[in-house]
Amino acid sequence: MAAQSWLHIPTDSHFSLSNIPFGIITTPDSQVPHPAVAIGTYALDLAVFTENNGFSGLPEFQAHLSVFSQETLNAFAALGQTVHRAVRRYLQSVLTEGSPHAALLQSNSGLRQKVLFPLGDIHNHLPMQIGDYTDFYAGKHHAVNVGTLFRDPKIALQPNYTHLPVGYHGRASSVVVTGTPLVRPSGQILDNPAADPKVPIFSPSRRLDIELELAAFVCKCNKLGAPVPITDAHEAIFGIVLMNDWSARDIQAWEYVPLGPFGSKNFQTTISPWVILADAMAPFMAKGLENESSLLPYLQEKKVDNMYDLELQVNLTSKQSNTKCKGAIQQTITKTTSRNLVWSFPQMLTHHTVTGCPMHVGDLLGSGTISGLDASERGSLLEQTSGGKVSMKLNGGEERKFLEDGDTITMTGWCGESGALVGFGDCTGTILPAVSL
Amino acid sequence: MAAQSWLHIPTDSHFSLSNIPFGIITTPDSQVPHPAVAIGTYALDLAVFTENNGFSGLPEFQAHLSVFSQETLNAFAALGQTVHRAVRRYLQSVLTEGSPHAALLQSNSGLRQKVLFPLGDIHNHLPMQIGDYTDFYAGKHHAVNVGTLFRDPKIALQPNYTHLPVGYHGRASSVVVTGTPLVRPSGQILDNPAADPKVPIFSPSRRLDIELELAAFVCKCNKLGAPVPITDAHEAIFGIVLMNDWSARDIQAWEYVPLGPFGSKNFQTTISPWVILADAMAPFMAKGLENESSLLPYLQEKKVDNMYDLELQVNLTSKQSNTKCKGAIQQTITKTTSRNLVWSFPQMLTHHTVTGCPMHVGDLLGSGTISGLDASERGSLLEQTSGGKVSMKLNGGEERKFLEDGDTITMTGWCGESGALVGFGDCTGTILPAVSL
Repeated sequence: MAAQSWLHIPTDSHFSLSNIPFGIITTPDSQVPHPAVAIGTYALDLAVFTENNGFSGLPEFQAHLSVFSQETLNAFAALGQTVHRAVRRYLQSVLTEGSPHAALLQSNSGLRQKVLFPLGDIHNHLPMQIGDYTDFYAGKHHAVNVGTLFRDPKIALQPNYTHLPVGYHGRASSVVVTGTPLVRPSGQILDNPAADPKVPIFSPSRRLDIELELAAFVCKCNKLGAPVPITDAHEAIFGIVLMNDWSARDIQAWEYVPLGPFGSKNFQTTISPWVILADAMAPFMAKGLENESSLLPYLQEKKVDNMYDLELQVNLTSKQSNTKCKGAIQQTITKTTSRNLVWSFPQMLTHHTVTGCPMHVGDLLGSGTISGLDASERGSLLEQTSGGKVSMKLNGGEERKFLEDGDTITMTGWCGESGALVGFGDCTGTILPAVSL
Repeated sequence: MAAQSWLHIPTDSHFSLSNIPFGIITTPDSQVPHPAVAIGTYALDLAVFTENNGFSGLPEFQAHLSVFSQETLNAFAALGQTVHRAVRRYLQSVLTEGSPHAALLQSNSGLRQKVLFPLGDIHNHLPMQIGDYTDFYAGKHHAVNVGTLFRDPKIALQPNYTHLPVGYHGRASSVVVTGTPLVRPSGQILDNPAADPKVPIFSPSRRLDIELELAAFVCKCNKLGAPVPITDAHEAIFGIVLMNDWSARDIQAWEYVPLGPFGSKNFQTTISPWVILADAMAPFMAKGLENESSLLPYLQEKKVDNMYDLELQVNLTSKQSNTKCKGAIQQTITKTTSRNLVWSFPQMLTHHTVTGCPMHVGDLLGSGTISGLDASERGSLLEQTSGGKVSMKLNGGEERKFLEDGDTITMTGWCGESGALVGFGDCTGTILPAVSL
């Protein structure tokens, strides 16, 4: 039986004792963003905890206490996985019934009141200052689905796909934390894509879409010109979040040749608020999708179970359902798993650095859209609606090809057993109408 | 006749009184990077100048003096063009013979000794902390040349090219300042591109190339979801630098479908050390290349002369020429002009933000490779050698298709008359052999 906390933690909470994910919050007591962990229905304020000698039981961490008075997790991340592991285990001990450190908070109601905030009372902020953000394309079924829509199904995958983690540089400045509303982007689209010559119009996107992804934060730098070998790459992963890489398919279709997606992606990318540490994910590794090519040595991992084993889900709440029923009704539109990836984050990171590209602490690596084989497992509406040709039926008689104003998308993901879940919480955003230029 | 400085400024100096470009330096007196301007053969140390009441003659700047004790120009840039203009003009006045402020330095040999450093005695650093780096593709002749090489000459330009500034997100972490050596990148390439199936090998790039570009630093933020109208976009340009967007063509050819260039570009991008302010470029505007399409209103500029009018040059110094002749011989391999662009930086910036993407102070926008029509005016070796098919003859009997280890590339650019030149100095880098993984 898993260890129990002296704090009441609902069995369906993503933030069990087995998780202890890190984030950045503001509280009713402090409007300056600062670190915290999520536990059950609470945030444990690490700035206040540290000020009150909360880490007195962790002597080796005394030299680093200032990392918890920073406005991002970058300084903590930079300390490396050994320190992350020690701090996470110490906090687990503090929160565990009957553990050596349990008395610190359990027996000190004054301190408890100062450091534990109901999650509904705090605000989450971006957990890291992101230097560069890169998005990969490691969801093989997604790549096949999209390739089939736009090209011949027989050549759905490009020849490079099974040899290297295809990726592109994304826009760091528009990565936001869950809950940030999304203003429908406007841009150049083709009113009549079949016309010759093609003449664009300026319009709000009519094909606004989601992309269900995992993303990893980097915690280790490498120097310019000094690649990270695959054997060292796992140490450079701080932890993971869920990500919705919102996409405007009509803007994308017109702009993306020959240099790739640009304005169709850079208007907003939403991540979940709490970073699940690499250490917390260690018990939840599985085999991902088989790669058909034999890999070049620099991409070969020793571990067979190199993929995170998370259940993933996307829910849609329409404005209509919200109004009609006097309360939002979330409808699940996708269920899939992160085993549907063909490249691991260490492989992505090594490939990213193999030419000599330097990584910085806080860099963000996206997995690419995660889709399963079945229609109900697809991580984008583009796939679910066969490129906007088939409507997706919603409860209450509504239909969707792409997102409408007022729609709320909520992504979530978890692993582990009831009572010991390790999950992200929500990654959510509501569509606001386009603004005029 | 142009104003004269009391300081001796060689007539061929890029750093005349008409320029006053800003950079970040370390000096024999201070190893902490700090702001400076270049004037003739000197750097004027703005940190020391400020500490010694150098700005006493500029009352409106007193509240902002701390920007010159920063390690980057971001804080100064964030003050906006009105302040940049006032500071630049004040420094011009301080350095001009017979001006009201000339006595400040001219009559104070003690202060002169503390603030003026020969350029050979200082080190340049990256002038800005770069948030995001975006590279456009606004060199129309380059786009035609590359399109002709890879596709049918009749469809060399994609249909979107004349309607929007095509661009992609680059890698900010690998932007470096002039003089940084370049380790030849390794990666996946096709030993036999015609083979079927295509199977890559891991190898040092055999087709290492340059790209001659201008780049603009951003000095004004916009919020997520709030595009910058074209009428406001020029105010968001802090100034410009020269840029060499080194490219590994063999890595690029294999990796770039379907999401664009990645490892073939992200190993290094070199910029010139001094930022020429937008104000200094104001007298040197000209008409760029004609755009064949009528533009959507959001991209229409009122100014007809919307392009910088700079002469640009690329020199190559081979290791062999350096050894044989007991002294490096620079050979000019490209001469062109920045009028060979079809999109201006304000147009790029407005298009970049039109979907709602936020700009931050310090963001970098690259123009894309600048090439003229003639073979001698092409800004990449790919174009000069017709994709590596034709060798370029160098003096001394050497030939090049792409860069060899030991080659030094030096880009330079200027405008204005002799004695009043406004230029970048050098943007240079030497190729070092590949490292093993």
